[in-house]
Amino acid sequence: MSRRYEELSGPEILDRISPSSTLLLPIGAVEQHGPHLPLAVDHVIAHETATAVVDAVGEDLDIWQLPTLSVSKSNEHAWSPGTLWYSADTMMAILRDLGRAVASTGAERLVLLNGHGGNTTLLNTALRELRLEFGLKTFLVHPSVPPAYGGVSTESELGMGIHGGLNETSVFMHLRPELVDLSKATRKVPEALADNRFVKFGGSVMFGWLSNDFDEDGYIGDPTGATPERGQGLFEANVTHLGDQLAEIVRFDFGR
Amino acid sequence: MSRRYEELSGPEILDRISPSSTLLLPIGAVEQHGPHLPLAVDHVIAHETATAVVDAVGEDLDIWQLPTLSVSKSNEHAWSPGTLWYSADTMMAILRDLGRAVASTGAERLVLLNGHGGNTTLLNTALRELRLEFGLKTFLVHPSVPPAYGGVSTESELGMGIHGGLNETSVFMHLRPELVDLSKATRKVPEALADNRFVKFGGSVMFGWLSNDFDEDGYIGDPTGATPERGQGLFEANVTHLGDQLAEIVRFDFGR
Amino acid sequence: MSRRYEELSGPEILDRISPSSTLLLPIGAVEQHGPHLPLAVDHVIAHETATAVVDAVGEDLDIWQLPTLSVSKSNEHAWSPGTLWYSADTMMAILRDLGRAVASTGAERLVLLNGHGGNTTLLNTALRELRLEFGLKTFLVHPSVPPAYGGVSTESELGMGIHGGLNETSVFMHLRPELVDLSKATRKVPEALADNRFVKFGGSVMFGWLSNDFDEDGYIGDPTGATPERGQGLFEANVTHLGDQLAEIVRFDFGR
Amino acid sequence: MSRRYEELSGPEILDRISPSSTLLLPIGAVEQHGPHLPLAVDHVIAHETATAVVDAVGEDLDIWQLPTLSVSKSNEHAWSPGTLWYSADTMMAILRDLGRAVASTGAERLVLLNGHGGNTTLLNTALRELRLEFGLKTFLVHPSVPPAYGGVSTESELGMGIHGGLNETSVFMHLRPELVDLSKATRKVPEALADNRFVKFGGSVMFGWLSNDFDEDGYIGDPTGATPERGQGLFEANVTHLGDQLAEIVRFDFGR
Amino acid sequence: MSRRYEELSGPEILDRISPSSTLLLPIGAVEQHGPHLPLAVDHVIAHETATAVVDAVGEDLDIWQLPTLSVSKSNEHAWSPGTLWYSADTMMAILRDLGRAVASTGAERLVLLNGHGGNTTLLNTALRELRLEFGLKTFLVHPSVPPAYGGVSTESELGMGIHGGLNETSVFMHLRPELVDLSKATRKVPEALADNRFVKFGGSVMFGWLSNDFDEDGYIGDPTGATPERGQGLFEANVTHLGDQLAEIVRFDFGR
Amino acid sequence: MSRRYEELSGPEILDRISPSSTLLLPIGAVEQHGPHLPLAVDHVIAHETATAVVDAVGEDLDIWQLPTLSVSKSNEHAWSPGTLWYSADTMMAILRDLGRAVASTGAERLVLLNGHGGNTTLLNTALRELRLEFGLKTFLVHPSVPPAYGGVSTESELGMGIHGGLNETSVFMHLRPELVDLSKATRKVPEALADNRFVKFGGSVMFGWLSNDFDEDGYIGDPTGATPERGQGLFEANVTHLGDQLAEIVRFDFGR
Repeated sequence: MSRRYEELSGPEILDRISPSSTLLLPIGAVEQHGPHLPLAVDHVIAHETATAVVDAVGEDLDIWQLPTLSVSKSNEHAWSPGTLWYSADTMMAILRDLGRAVASTGAERLVLLNGHGGNTTLLNTALRELRLEFGLKTFLVHPSVPPAYGGVSTESELGMGIHGGLNETSVFMHLRPELVDLSKATRKVPEALADNRFVKFGGSVMFGWLSNDFDEDGYIGDPTGATPERGQGLFEANVTHLGDQLAEIVRFDFGR
Repeated sequence: MSRRYEELSGPEILDRISPSSTLLLPIGAVEQHGPHLPLAVDHVIAHETATAVVDAVGEDLDIWQLPTLSVSKSNEHAWSPGTLWYSADTMMAILRDLGRAVASTGAERLVLLNGHGGNTTLLNTALRELRLEFGLKTFLVHPSVPPAYGGVSTESELGMGIHGGLNETSVFMHLRPELVDLSKATRKVPEALADNRFVKFGGSVMFGWLSNDFDEDGYIGDPTGATPERGQGLFEANVTHLGDQLAEIVRFDFGR
Repeated sequence: MSRRYEELSGPEILDRISPSSTLLLPIGAVEQHGPHLPLAVDHVIAHETATAVVDAVGEDLDIWQLPTLSVSKSNEHAWSPGTLWYSADTMMAILRDLGRAVASTGAERLVLLNGHGGNTTLLNTALRELRLEFGLKTFLVHPSVPPAYGGVSTESELGMGIHGGLNETSVFMHLRPELVDLSKATRKVPEALADNRFVKFGGSVMFGWLSNDFDEDGYIGDPTGATPERGQGLFEANVTHLGDQLAEIVRFDFGR
Repeated sequence: MSRRYEELSGPEILDRISPSSTLLLPIGAVEQHGPHLPLAVDHVIAHETATAVVDAVGEDLDIWQLPTLSVSKSNEHAWSPGTLWYSADTMMAILRDLGRAVASTGAERLVLLNGHGGNTTLLNTALRELRLEFGLKTFLVHPSVPPAYGGVSTESELGMGIHGGLNETSVFMHLRPELVDLSKATRKVPEALADNRFVKFGGSVMFGWLSNDFDEDGYIGDPTGATPERGQGLFEANVTHLGDQLAEIVRFDFGR
Repeated sequence: MSRRYEELSGPEILDRISPSSTLLLPIGAVEQHGPHLPLAVDHVIAHETATAVVDAVGEDLDIWQLPTLSVSKSNEHAWSPGTLWYSADTMMAILRDLGRAVASTGAERLVLLNGHGGNTTLLNTALRELRLEFGLKTFLVHPSVPPAYGGVSTESELGMGIHGGLNETSVFMHLRPELVDLSKATRKVPEALADNRFVKFGGSVMFGWLSNDFDEDGYIGDPTGATPERGQGLFEANVTHLGDQLAEIVRFDFGR
Repeated sequence: MSRRYEELSGPEILDRISPSSTLLLPIGAVEQHGPHLPLAVDHVIAHETATAVVDAVGEDLDIWQLPTLSVSKSNEHAWSPGTLWYSADTMMAILRDLGRAVASTGAERLVLLNGHGGNTTLLNTALRELRLEFGLKTFLVHPSVPPAYGGVSTESELGMGIHGGLNETSVFMHLRPELVDLSKATRKVPEALADNRFVKFGGSVMFGWLSNDFDEDGYIGDPTGATPERGQGLFEANVTHLGDQLAEIVRFDFGR
């Protein structure tokens, strides 16, 4: 049976959504991903991943899939014509409005499934805002399996395949092979960062960056070896992993 | 060839989008439509109509379809748990952000294809805001053919089949028959309004209303006679009509 | 007896304003109207029309005239030095503040009498905002009688005498003859628009425009034949028509 | 010749307004003034004073009178139904918008003639905002002559006739005798404050207050001895004094 | 015993802060003060004055010292690189947030001790905002003793030693002698203003100014005769005077 | 020589601050930390750590210490009277204003030294905002050494000593021993979280929480074994570690 929130009628919302229900909001982006990938990458991956995981565990865990937010805060790509981006203020306003609406249904849990890394810190801030303002239990998950949970390592990218790199390109090739042109891709790894002890992606010093700070082509990683097979493996592992996360989320309580 | 904006890469935006290009933004809504229809009605109709018209005339008229905005300003249904709605301020912020991004592509024309009547006046205000701030030529169209252009009249609804009524229900039955349960629908026409000379839908006195001002079920019209065949006829006429409108829009200039 | 709201004292507000009272807010503008008319046109017409109609029917219908808002959202004339204009955000903030204050009096009905076309869509949006936030019954009327209700047609202007044209100039000549210099006026009708089927004033495609998009002089219409006599006729018909609208407004209820 | 700004046409603004012109904005209020005075007091006094002073010195000093802002920040009277009030944010937004418009005319000086004491500190803040944002030379004056410049002292009110008291009531009786009902007035002087060394009106400790903090009737002063003759004397002295202030303002420069 | 608010624990706030407690917020600034003084002047003076007065009378009067706000609205010095300044909107937001937090403690009185003249009008506006929104009794004091209360006159500066002048420089020399370089100071008194009857500091016409409107060095006054001894005398008199003001503030009531 | 930014004069800012300078903003908080610690904990730690590290490496690395922001976004403690907290919007406005001012000095690097974990995600978002709006290179560091860099592990707290726990209490005992009352502390570790695979502090599922979600006392960790000696060791290691981070930060470039 359908687990798409918007396929319910108004009266059905009252019947079907209860405090034990969890609402899942996929968040995509429409932003430049280099010459080998279309703007749609994060939009597609967030939507397809959410759909697959809800198909897999939605019925068992009482999860409802909200319509995918296609555009989000992509201002690190604002320099690139074509990128659609909301300002931080607009993005927060959207989340507040959706949080208020979600809270009116009686559901107590809202999960943000975020396909665009540039949103992560703002969404994390929003988790507390929505908890404080609307009393929701709020969670943030991502569609990628970290290596520690079975994700394939990207050591060849020095851990910096963060935008249009090997794994993202592979997953997208699995989902939309016709929209990828690998012949336009080259290796774009900011090697200099690798020598840093602190100021690097995932380092102890966080830093502000725009996607053209490293290279004018605006992607970061080495997609040259991407394959749909690798993408399929990653995608399926991601879906399984998200299912495990959701199983814990729907049981989660603060214990007070 | 694809006319979906987000299927272009960043460099392709520069190649393919030019001052003669027109960008089309479908705007839906996720809001209660009574017990016989799901929340998705406006989202689906806006998206399907946009897709059909871009498939029909996009290549000839150099039109690009932006990702559909699924949620919008549905505050007349805020009383109904389940409705997802942006405040007027959030909605305007979204449009400003998108207008700024669209203007950066070099395209000069932005068309809003609005599937939710509750947005119309705000979007109309936004047309001028975006023209003034970003220099865009801006347009607003709707997916319904007015009777004067071949649309089927709804005299039986006294011209008040405005939300979940005969035509909307029919079009949606054509697009998603499995999501309609006509057995739950009855006639909900605010007959008293019909006697008014001025204060009525489309009358010379505009008035503020919420969808539960007339009836607690929140829909307005008489969907009981809806059929997918009627819906198909309307939908196809709408697409043809929108194609005609777009043909005029892409040629439009102020003549100065 | 006076029907000017501001002539009441604080304690009289409590005595005289009741749920059956209707408050009328005239909204003007101070904006360029071409070389033949002063900036004050919309301000004067809104104020004089409101005064005349309240003098005529205020006592019978329990209507109170609020002080005229002289300046409003005239951003289509922002290019013209001298135009005083509020941004859309400021204008909405003003309306929210006034709506909150009006609701505190116990009156249930607020009528906006709008003399400036550039406000219409924003005011229409505000009708719902004020209804939702403050529970007011809200209405929007305009000082011009449409042809269908006895207004004189402007066929010679191809239906495009919308800013400083024949009728507006005539009405203003009736009200402030000393402020009109018809010798500076010529015909400024954007004839090219007339051939359009959809993209035109009142057409099915709404479009964003600034008043210098058509002509650098910034007025739209043909005022050359304007006379005070014509203006008097229009003004009086307008007042009568508004009285009829108000009579219906004060009786209006949603019927639920 | 007319010195009303709004009686100019757009082209005349360019001809008549120059860097040596000064624009004068009267700012009123529509707020409770006790049982003996109508809401309009500040609106009327600001407007009439501005008109009289512009009639007297406008031509000589190249001053133009902007339309009176009837409503302003009267939130100390928000407790009293009927008071129309803008929030501090709305009021500042209005001033910014007007400042931007005024700066576009080429005039370099903007004078705020403020009839409502509750605005004074916000307007004073705005003087700097408009100077910084738009480069305007900005000034704030009030319609009352302080004792040091010939104003009649209000020692009997212990210097606390600040809202609906002797002088304000007298001036208003001069301007609108038919709107005053002195039979409803009594002495409302917060005597206890007089013993304070610091915390009092005009004392070295400023303090936040609402008009019902002292007395439920919401006026402060002793209007019982008010007369139109006294009012006329005050009004005429005020106009003369304002003329002197304006003469200095139009010559004022920073000397750098 | 400590009277620093932040040295209390959460549970101690509940025990120690009561309706009879008064909270004191010192407000500094970090802004250019000419070549002879560091940016810190207002920050240091506000902080040291507050500390001294709370040490002197805090225990007796049940006063708690909030952490000093080091930066504030210094936009008259925005032209000078190095000045840290909050916009008027940010400053008001800070005050609202602090007011809300202060009101949650149960204390009824909040005193702003403002070390930067550029804040005065905004803070005065905020007194009413916080009273209206949070029910607090709010007060604004300054660290300088006016001549009428024993402050040393600055006749030699024509009453215009308002920023980096004789008294401020002296007080700062008393507090931080090592940070003053008097050899860089000269007389910077805008003599031309002195001839004005109305438009001058403290005159009846308020005017907008930036600190470089008078002189490119951005200070106003004559610090050349400043001495730490004079500063000590002023500082001690200020502290005594503030103690007297606070004694009246903690007893103050509206008498209703 | 002093490395306190505010001890410079305006002209010295121009002389001393150059593109190779780095500005360091310590960010504290004034918020409940349980019954054993005062509100000042984060304020004191951020300030003392910043001072120590600037004393150690400021001269060598051309670093300038900005005045400490004492209050920040502590809304997870809004439930506890006494906590001073800025909303997310206010906090972002403060950072934008400071970023704009910092950029005006000519310095290219701004480092946020954040003492309050509740700010981390918002500050991380701000890094990009300030980079995009003002072109600054922006960095975020924290005063605690992570275990991987020599910090003492808190295995006994199951990795959850995040607010008022062993290490924070120890460091604060080192800095302000007189303000700690360990007799009021007990073990407050949310043991149930430890069994979670994903939803836990530092887990792969981020979640929204308030500090009273786990326990009404509002602290999280086990401070019972805290000692000043442990605190001294941690503090000194932190300062050394921050010095190393800053050394890398001042050399950091994007390499493009």
